[in-house]
Amino acid sequence: MRRRLHACAIGAAIFIGLHAASDTGARPVTVSDLLSATSATDWRKPDPDNTLYLQLAGGRVIIELAPLIAPRHVANIKALVRAHYFDGLAILRVQDNYVVQWADPDKHRPVPVGVRLVAPELTADPGAYAHFEPLPDHDLYAPQVGFIHGFPAGRDPHTRTTWLAHCYGMVGVGRDDAAESDATEMYAVIGHAPRQLDRNVTLVGRVLQGIEKLSSLPRGSGEMGFYGKFEPLAPIVAMRLASDVPEASRAPLEVLRTDSAAFQEITDQRRNRREDWFKYNPGRIDLCNIPLPVRTAAPGG
Amino acid sequence: MRRRLHACAIGAAIFIGLHAASDTGARPVTVSDLLSATSATDWRKPDPDNTLYLQLAGGRVIIELAPLIAPRHVANIKALVRAHYFDGLAILRVQDNYVVQWADPDKHRPVPVGVRLVAPELTADPGAYAHFEPLPDHDLYAPQVGFIHGFPAGRDPHTRTTWLAHCYGMVGVGRDDAAESDATEMYAVIGHAPRQLDRNVTLVGRVLQGIEKLSSLPRGSGEMGFYGKFEPLAPIVAMRLASDVPEASRAPLEVLRTDSAAFQEITDQRRNRREDWFKYNPGRIDLCNIPLPVRTAAPGG
Repeated sequence: MRRRLHACAIGAAIFIGLHAASDTGARPVTVSDLLSATSATDWRKPDPDNTLYLQLAGGRVIIELAPLIAPRHVANIKALVRAHYFDGLAILRVQDNYVVQWADPDKHRPVPVGVRLVAPELTADPGAYAHFEPLPDHDLYAPQVGFIHGFPAGRDPHTRTTWLAHCYGMVGVGRDDAAESDATEMYAVIGHAPRQLDRNVTLVGRVLQGIEKLSSLPRGSGEMGFYGKFEPLAPIVAMRLASDVPEASRAPLEVLRTDSAAFQEITDQRRNRREDWFKYNPGRIDLCNIPLPVRTAAPGG
Repeated sequence: MRRRLHACAIGAAIFIGLHAASDTGARPVTVSDLLSATSATDWRKPDPDNTLYLQLAGGRVIIELAPLIAPRHVANIKALVRAHYFDGLAILRVQDNYVVQWADPDKHRPVPVGVRLVAPELTADPGAYAHFEPLPDHDLYAPQVGFIHGFPAGRDPHTRTTWLAHCYGMVGVGRDDAAESDATEMYAVIGHAPRQLDRNVTLVGRVLQGIEKLSSLPRGSGEMGFYGKFEPLAPIVAMRLASDVPEASRAPLEVLRTDSAAFQEITDQRRNRREDWFKYNPGRIDLCNIPLPVRTAAPGG
């Protein structure tokens, strides 16, 4: 007896069933259904001045920066990008189940004027605390988890601090044992969330589109996934702010607002798996398993 | 001012410091140090009769099967492999941050005699309960987490059940909405642990070596990461049991015993990050972030 292949793909990753409240009766409500039912106000357009285009030979990786969480590091990144600092540099580390890292492989390129070593931004400004959108789910690493300005985050009510969480696709800035950084080394998470890094290294944003162009790169054979002497680096064609490219060349992305009812419905259906495929309903969800929907706006929309 | 690149790679992934108890005084003890200090009895050689070689164009992926946890599915896999069922089939799904899946893309190949649909093996035999090695760390999905026969697992003291956990690199068997499976579709986890699948789909083992040959494959552009019509599948050259290949062609792998003191020391140093790089010690570890050391035995060893 043969299986129907697409139907039996494990986890039915994009189908999220709900037997009740389906307008079709029998067919479970899917994420697609929920996304189709969203209204324009459920979506936000990331600020082009805080959107990075990391252009690789294989295509564009689009990163949303978090200036409200890591203003000093984001300012450094913008100054570096506007000076075309990263153009012609390379991805020089791809460690399986961990991170992709890019920087100056020769460490020869001068750092532009105005880019300084800045203190780490491991927790957000106290003002962020009130903007935190908590989840009901527990977490191993943080007293509370949820979202802040659209990014996955942890919060400690005791210290009233908030911080970004190292989920898959999050982007940060490498540093030495000294906590300061000038943001000339950046990384993206491409594996199981290394949450032990939370509050240890400054996160500056997350990949909105194109993470697979990083996660499918050949792994480096050197220590910690650095490319060895005879392995080709993955060159960075250019890194630009969206606001610095002509409007016609920008990707018209929209991100589902984490404070929308639609986002909460999607999260809840990911939490409670009621479709036929699931024999056991987990009834909870890991912060880093919550989908953060991104779409391309309709032309003229 | 320039950073020392290798020193400031984020997370210092392979360095696990401990200021006390270092025989060198100043230098933190690393995982390498701890591994170097292990004795031969800390390691086990996986049974060749339960070791799978998944041969791709890019090299060999080595999988350790878990016959004590999923005996019926493992028996099916062995029968399929011994009939060379998977040879010439393909990886037909690579979904970013989720799974790689392999099967018969045309669904034409006859299933060998002796391979039957079997009931799911979502929890282990009750006898496994006593062999569980618990961790002190909490978990979002399971009342207790730890290891069983060397595999990451969950346990519920209330129901006295034990099950394998969907960590990065774990290998399972796809199924339809019906719970039964004949093991003709297999998958490996290549993203943030999809723990919602625990107790929903039968896990049969884990990748010991070569996971990067799966995780760096191009992502499929179709729904759920299936390769589209015009995307080349990744062919399976052959799948064999180690016991069915000449001894000279076998990989002499050894796995650190999860019940060894060395494993507990490594886990504890991953849990408590005391090296200089870390400014904040997490003091806990996610089951799916615990390294499971594998080494190649010395020649003649």
